[in-house]
Amino acid sequence: MSEIELIKLLQLYKNGQIDDSEILETISQLPYKDLGCAKLDTHRGLRCGVEEVIFCPGKIPEHLQSICKAAANMTGLCIFTRVSSDQAQLILKELPEANYYKDAAIIAVNIVEQDKLEGIAIVTGGTSDIRVAEEAAITAELMGNRVERIYDVGAAGIHRLFPYLDTLRKANAIVVVAGMEGALVTVVGGLVSAPVIAVPTSVGYGANLGGMTTLLSMLNSCVPGVSVVNIDNGFGGGVSAHLINRKVHGKK
Amino acid sequence: MSEIELIKLLQLYKNGQIDDSEILETISQLPYKDLGCAKLDTHRGLRCGVEEVIFCPGKIPEHLQSICKAAANMTGLCIFTRVSSDQAQLILKELPEANYYKDAAIIAVNIVEQDKLEGIAIVTGGTSDIRVAEEAAITAELMGNRVERIYDVGAAGIHRLFPYLDTLRKANAIVVVAGMEGALVTVVGGLVSAPVIAVPTSVGYGANLGGMTTLLSMLNSCVPGVSVVNIDNGFGGGVSAHLINRKVHGKK
Amino acid sequence: MSEIELIKLLQLYKNGQIDDSEILETISQLPYKDLGCAKLDTHRGLRCGVEEVIFCPGKIPEHLQSICKAAANMTGLCIFTRVSSDQAQLILKELPEANYYKDAAIIAVNIVEQDKLEGIAIVTGGTSDIRVAEEAAITAELMGNRVERIYDVGAAGIHRLFPYLDTLRKANAIVVVAGMEGALVTVVGGLVSAPVIAVPTSVGYGANLGGMTTLLSMLNSCVPGVSVVNIDNGFGGGVSAHLINRKVHGKK
Amino acid sequence: MSEIELIKLLQLYKNGQIDDSEILETISQLPYKDLGCAKLDTHRGLRCGVEEVIFCPGKIPEHLQSICKAAANMTGLCIFTRVSSDQAQLILKELPEANYYKDAAIIAVNIVEQDKLEGIAIVTGGTSDIRVAEEAAITAELMGNRVERIYDVGAAGIHRLFPYLDTLRKANAIVVVAGMEGALVTVVGGLVSAPVIAVPTSVGYGANLGGMTTLLSMLNSCVPGVSVVNIDNGFGGGVSAHLINRKVHGKK
Amino acid sequence: MSEIELIKLLQLYKNGQIDDSEILETISQLPYKDLGCAKLDTHRGLRCGVEEVIFCPGKIPEHLQSICKAAANMTGLCIFTRVSSDQAQLILKELPEANYYKDAAIIAVNIVEQDKLEGIAIVTGGTSDIRVAEEAAITAELMGNRVERIYDVGAAGIHRLFPYLDTLRKANAIVVVAGMEGALVTVVGGLVSAPVIAVPTSVGYGANLGGMTTLLSMLNSCVPGVSVVNIDNGFGGGVSAHLINRKVHGKK
Amino acid sequence: MSEIELIKLLQLYKNGQIDDSEILETISQLPYKDLGCAKLDTHRGLRCGVEEVIFCPGKIPEHLQSICKAAANMTGLCIFTRVSSDQAQLILKELPEANYYKDAAIIAVNIVEQDKLEGIAIVTGGTSDIRVAEEAAITAELMGNRVERIYDVGAAGIHRLFPYLDTLRKANAIVVVAGMEGALVTVVGGLVSAPVIAVPTSVGYGANLGGMTTLLSMLNSCVPGVSVVNIDNGFGGGVSAHLINRKVHGKK
Amino acid sequence: MSEIELIKLLQLYKNGQIDDSEILETISQLPYKDLGCAKLDTHRGLRCGVEEVIFCPGKIPEHLQSICKAAANMTGLCIFTRVSSDQAQLILKELPEANYYKDAAIIAVNIVEQDKLEGIAIVTGGTSDIRVAEEAAITAELMGNRVERIYDVGAAGIHRLFPYLDTLRKANAIVVVAGMEGALVTVVGGLVSAPVIAVPTSVGYGANLGGMTTLLSMLNSCVPGVSVVNIDNGFGGGVSAHLINRKVHGKK
Amino acid sequence: MSEIELIKLLQLYKNGQIDDSEILETISQLPYKDLGCAKLDTHRGLRCGVEEVIFCPGKIPEHLQSICKAAANMTGLCIFTRVSSDQAQLILKELPEANYYKDAAIIAVNIVEQDKLEGIAIVTGGTSDIRVAEEAAITAELMGNRVERIYDVGAAGIHRLFPYLDTLRKANAIVVVAGMEGALVTVVGGLVSAPVIAVPTSVGYGANLGGMTTLLSMLNSCVPGVSVVNIDNGFGGGVSAHLINRKVHGKK
Repeated sequence: MSEIELIKLLQLYKNGQIDDSEILETISQLPYKDLGCAKLDTHRGLRCGVEEVIFCPGKIPEHLQSICKAAANMTGLCIFTRVSSDQAQLILKELPEANYYKDAAIIAVNIVEQDKLEGIAIVTGGTSDIRVAEEAAITAELMGNRVERIYDVGAAGIHRLFPYLDTLRKANAIVVVAGMEGALVTVVGGLVSAPVIAVPTSVGYGANLGGMTTLLSMLNSCVPGVSVVNIDNGFGGGVSAHLINRKVHGKK
Repeated sequence: MSEIELIKLLQLYKNGQIDDSEILETISQLPYKDLGCAKLDTHRGLRCGVEEVIFCPGKIPEHLQSICKAAANMTGLCIFTRVSSDQAQLILKELPEANYYKDAAIIAVNIVEQDKLEGIAIVTGGTSDIRVAEEAAITAELMGNRVERIYDVGAAGIHRLFPYLDTLRKANAIVVVAGMEGALVTVVGGLVSAPVIAVPTSVGYGANLGGMTTLLSMLNSCVPGVSVVNIDNGFGGGVSAHLINRKVHGKK
Repeated sequence: MSEIELIKLLQLYKNGQIDDSEILETISQLPYKDLGCAKLDTHRGLRCGVEEVIFCPGKIPEHLQSICKAAANMTGLCIFTRVSSDQAQLILKELPEANYYKDAAIIAVNIVEQDKLEGIAIVTGGTSDIRVAEEAAITAELMGNRVERIYDVGAAGIHRLFPYLDTLRKANAIVVVAGMEGALVTVVGGLVSAPVIAVPTSVGYGANLGGMTTLLSMLNSCVPGVSVVNIDNGFGGGVSAHLINRKVHGKK
Repeated sequence: MSEIELIKLLQLYKNGQIDDSEILETISQLPYKDLGCAKLDTHRGLRCGVEEVIFCPGKIPEHLQSICKAAANMTGLCIFTRVSSDQAQLILKELPEANYYKDAAIIAVNIVEQDKLEGIAIVTGGTSDIRVAEEAAITAELMGNRVERIYDVGAAGIHRLFPYLDTLRKANAIVVVAGMEGALVTVVGGLVSAPVIAVPTSVGYGANLGGMTTLLSMLNSCVPGVSVVNIDNGFGGGVSAHLINRKVHGKK
Repeated sequence: MSEIELIKLLQLYKNGQIDDSEILETISQLPYKDLGCAKLDTHRGLRCGVEEVIFCPGKIPEHLQSICKAAANMTGLCIFTRVSSDQAQLILKELPEANYYKDAAIIAVNIVEQDKLEGIAIVTGGTSDIRVAEEAAITAELMGNRVERIYDVGAAGIHRLFPYLDTLRKANAIVVVAGMEGALVTVVGGLVSAPVIAVPTSVGYGANLGGMTTLLSMLNSCVPGVSVVNIDNGFGGGVSAHLINRKVHGKK
Repeated sequence: MSEIELIKLLQLYKNGQIDDSEILETISQLPYKDLGCAKLDTHRGLRCGVEEVIFCPGKIPEHLQSICKAAANMTGLCIFTRVSSDQAQLILKELPEANYYKDAAIIAVNIVEQDKLEGIAIVTGGTSDIRVAEEAAITAELMGNRVERIYDVGAAGIHRLFPYLDTLRKANAIVVVAGMEGALVTVVGGLVSAPVIAVPTSVGYGANLGGMTTLLSMLNSCVPGVSVVNIDNGFGGGVSAHLINRKVHGKK
Repeated sequence: MSEIELIKLLQLYKNGQIDDSEILETISQLPYKDLGCAKLDTHRGLRCGVEEVIFCPGKIPEHLQSICKAAANMTGLCIFTRVSSDQAQLILKELPEANYYKDAAIIAVNIVEQDKLEGIAIVTGGTSDIRVAEEAAITAELMGNRVERIYDVGAAGIHRLFPYLDTLRKANAIVVVAGMEGALVTVVGGLVSAPVIAVPTSVGYGANLGGMTTLLSMLNSCVPGVSVVNIDNGFGGGVSAHLINRKVHGKK
Repeated sequence: MSEIELIKLLQLYKNGQIDDSEILETISQLPYKDLGCAKLDTHRGLRCGVEEVIFCPGKIPEHLQSICKAAANMTGLCIFTRVSSDQAQLILKELPEANYYKDAAIIAVNIVEQDKLEGIAIVTGGTSDIRVAEEAAITAELMGNRVERIYDVGAAGIHRLFPYLDTLRKANAIVVVAGMEGALVTVVGGLVSAPVIAVPTSVGYGANLGGMTTLLSMLNSCVPGVSVVNIDNGFGGGVSAHLINRKVHGKK
């Protein structure tokens, strides 16, 4: 339900064209699609600039199937994240026209053709961080942005980053994906004026504590202007960059 | 040293007007001011869009004094954060013209008069979060932004937030400052399309673990587009919002 | 042994009809069934309002088998929780008349036909929380309550919750099952006057720490009247709601 | 704003007696009192069965003062919790008619004279847990309940608990306040059929981890029907017991 | 090398019958058996009252094989603990005369026939704790003690423990094996005067944190006279009880 | 109430000399002294071999005073532990004949003159561990044991321990008090056949985590026969050694 | 690019033989090899004394393949660490001439024949620590050092260490690899004057917390001169020893 | 006792010039000085290359006094670390000739005049890390090394480090002292071939967790050749660097 429709509805009520129970029912039922096991938030795109996204881990197969069937009848972009191989098979059977981005573990349907907005760069510390970086990159691209990928430029060999300084300085938002001690965030943050979204990865072992060390390290970066999302949360990093970039391009 | 000066310097070297040792010395010495105990990064404003900031806790008084004396001879904005009462007295003695924002524990000198950029809103869950929120607000204001303050609208009484939805939807960046379970971040993030910077506070007790629970909770928000800074890090929240807002206003 | 039987026994002793050793033996042996490996607490239903429940993980198959054989000879309700597929096969072979609730991983025998007590609502944040919610729901139902299921109404799209406010406000006890940051607990708790039992789930990843973040977050909810059970402990949530509901309905 | 007033308001709007902007302004402004630094949720009593409560730690004195002045003009019960000695002095100066419960660190104004509802028992493991127990007891009493106090009956000398079994079995809700390993919760929970609210205290040292051990231990109690609130959260324990008790007594 | 042999050796050296290098070589080489990958401490039985024990997890199969071959040529008791099925097969192939205690995951060779010393009781909270309890029991029995097993008498149904009070009060050392909140330790410790060795198990889930909660809880027991070993460390519990019992029976 | 008295009481009841309510009242009231705020377990000495002990931290002064007054009228040993300077003053005023052991922070009254039982050794790693060691030593001495003190023999200079090997090997129970990495426990445990009670201290800093590191380290000692009590819990260490030693000396 | 080449390049630029864009391009591109997914730091050997090392976990097979192909065309030593069986197969197919050290999970190509530098000893506490020790040993050997292996000399039987004291005292750097409580580090550190690199292993269970306890314990060793690397980080331990040893042998 | 004296002693024994009890007494008593409360390890300098060091926190004043009196009669260097102001006063009264290094919180007596060994550099991230850095620097200097101090060159402004690259590359051991995310360690480690000793500081707040984040981050540095000491352990960092440097200079 768009904002305009909402205003119309209120006026109908005021004019007595619909009564108490009708307006309550309309407002209550419209903005999501009730599948019993799930209630798809079809209104989110308008409200938040990000469409409904299906986080797949832990879903009972029958529930995932219901969601696919509902998605098949919707018109907006629908993204499935953290798709396992088994789930991918199930989803692609229900939605054969969907695109499957295997490295990113993402499946998307109803992809909108559009001009991409320039302004997002995604940087990784190592090669092992690429899966998470791709989750961020595909997410941002599906939402209408162009993404510059700068991979394997970690702080252990800082000179590998320098050729990309120019690209970084042109970005409206930079996503830094790194594991281990995550020092790359501080190095990048100290060289640019764009907001930096840090995505800690669980790459590492032992005292890395499944990425908690990287997460905590990034939160303590001595460079201001860095904010952080959950471990391995490439999706969240991509969305944050997208929201910044669309504001810079003047979208509401 | 501005970018233009840097280019000039390289050309002088190329033309043989300065030799190897001169150019190395210049590049090495220029962009910071060496006080022995400290090396002020005078170049940061140009590079990162944020001036050098002095984080005060743990500083030996003599070192803080040296930094004040150096700041007195500089022309750019200089911000002291987390100033204790004792340190405030010391700093204000050295820099009597400085402004002291007591609730925010900030002291600033060489404040630039300028038109403020619209676009930042700062929201708190409770009254006890205001100190941290003020650190964010003063930081963003000193850097040239106008800030909308929306305080004490926590998720326990969600209707208190609704009158401000319009203000929130106009913002380019929203800083949400909350303690305890930090649910306000999810509620706000689910209603707007602006990027949300979450600042967890250490307000709470027991299983709040000095703010760690709030921090972890915010990192796990089921709303995408939320990124998080360190506990009580109002300064970092303010800077992130500032960097986004200046990009939206077309600054490099 | 009912309370009446206990009083009778004490009087027999007082009257000299049974001697020291007899009363001690009777009291010591009656209220549980000793299987060697296990001592089934057959007295719990009378004492606590909840029958003996078999927590299955880690049980050696032979021990589980003994317990099944004992249960076959008992008359009261007997619930097996956290049943793995292998264990389900073993139990159903021993107790072919038992009911198997697969999504809830519960098996029950000697189910009592009875009028259900109204008054329990179970709410989930997402679709992935349904397994835990079903453990709570089946538990409460087996113990004689009617359960209202309200699934996938998480705080990211708060409007999905509103149509159910009326149902929630009629409940005597509300179980909120959620993962990630668990903000739904605060939102629900802020809208109703029923006691809220929060069940954190391990749905999430990274800084979710296997549900610890959700657990800690719920414990710090800024809404009073929320109490919390262990991670994924749908059973405990169901029992707490049951104990409240039966008190409201006047049971001792 | 009561429910009846809300319905009236909607009808006025429908009849055209108030227009769009008026209804929005009314709904937006009515249910809380805006003090700038704070927004008192005056509507909570009706909505949640618990009046607005002021959590005092970390409040800037000027803000606390504003809240007191507002409270002086309100008619409903107003409770200040976790009051420090300094804050107590400030509050009592503004609200000289208020009651100060020092052991519980609570101050209350506008206390309602009413018949107390029977049905709450509060139990402590040791003498050192009494401060937290009193916070629970005073809270429940202020909200209209009668409280049975059973103090220092910890599991190390379990026979001290037995004389109180009868009292415990009559309760509608039992609050167990204990530190260290919190075993009292399991012992009590195994003997009664009332819902048990466990309040871990920070009494202990070393591996007690400021109460975290007690909290975790209680969450893992092998007795079902136990739910837990935050460490030292006597207030929360008291409210949960109150919400259960009022439901049992047939209040909405 | 016995103490007598050691004294002889020193006298030979003093009398000049052996020289510097000889005595050093003898002392250095005698008390263990060097297998390259392992150095079996053949002297431990004399020194510590406990023979060399082989902790099996993580051992490379070839190394385990070497140890078996060495054990085959030794005369003292040799215990392999935490034996996996694969390792059991390997060990039993090398040492076909060895005894395999499957529930305890222990294999032993060179078992000494001897009169068992009375005085050890082993208690479990639930049926799922039996594996760990058996590790303790078999360990203590192999070292020459008689063990009273009292299983499934957890604190949720405390009356199941009472028939065994007499047995417990006769014990010289009591090993309490329990998971979840471990309250059984406090209950037992409050009823007896024997030293209690608490063995936390990893039975539980969620906030049990793999047994850390049980461990911490037991360390905070409000009953003095309880000491604790590592999670699931039945072996350590058995050895501690054995060392106490043999002292009581007058062994050095 | 001694065991004999208990038997008498039961026979009176059987003979009809006392009735239902009388026996219940007697059993319920006898074994502790009810002070309202506290219920002194006067029966513990008989039951557990350890008298009632007053853990002082967090006690409200009035409550401590009541306990002192009660103790003045009791005949058995009464120990106050963790006494702060303020509390010491209060206690000594009420109980002027009490003994104050300042380094151990213990006050004791009604000390029994008796022959001390040989057999306990207490060892510390460093000088900073002595406060905790003294708590253990004074506790064990007050309960009737002779204690050998061996202080400052930490593993960094292992030769300092060797002169005491003979003393250690004669002990029935050894208490090892150490901070930092606690390696002394492993070294001592590898040289003796007595049970070792490890007391981790909070001596250290940073990654010592207030003693948690020492505690965890000791729990993971590669030497079997070591059991552990809470951080800085000298009292618990002393009691465990006492319980072992009295068993060795044939006490029940 | 060697240092000499770098100086030449700068002079060409100064002499005008190369221009601005050329020098930037050269500096930017030379010191690493860009494979798209990876940027091999071919300059590290010169800069850091350690060649580029490929950390294998988490690498997408295609990426690992690209790295192998690049390595095939390089001349310097290239080490793959933490190679899984599957990865080993892939790497050895691409680089059939490579050496596979299975216990150490290392594959190396372009191994340099050279005289080994004496001076490194590697010590383990138990047999289960050997995998990690071998990672350290092979690493140090591949980089040109001779390694003395002293395995299974843990602190539980300290006499097993003494025959090796002479070897240890001759070493320039000692790597101590141990699990559980890691006491061996303190014992070794207290006997030698060489710097000790401690490598905690994840050998242990329960409160060992996957090696965190060993790590923390080692960091708190009461012996100075011990420094620590990550859990199971044999590679890091080997490199640190190598860097020390080559300095002692006068390498830059 | 030097090694030569030890050999002499053994020969006296062999020749019958001293008997069993004499040699045992001599060996047992010589290498430390027994003060009752403390046993000074006077032999450590010879054995470990580091003299006995007195760690002051938690010492009872009388004990510290005894140690001072003993130190006054010794001839070797004696260092007191972590001296509080009160303790400094006490020590300087006993040892008026001692040197007090206030910023480093170190007091030293019997300082040896000697030529300093070149080769140690100490680097800090910020000004607030200087206290810890000075502890490292003074320690290394007292033990005979010359120290290059490079302060406030943190990774947020990496250009401040470059002028010191030459100094760093000449060092035999580099101590990096940093707080927050500790990224400086990775940056330095990626530029030099000297072994790097990382000293995390507790500078930071919130998710810094008292330095644990910095510690964990440094342990996960993606640069090999970095080893880490405890939080704020400047002393340990200084000793490790000293042990490396003296090996490079050919000392045993």
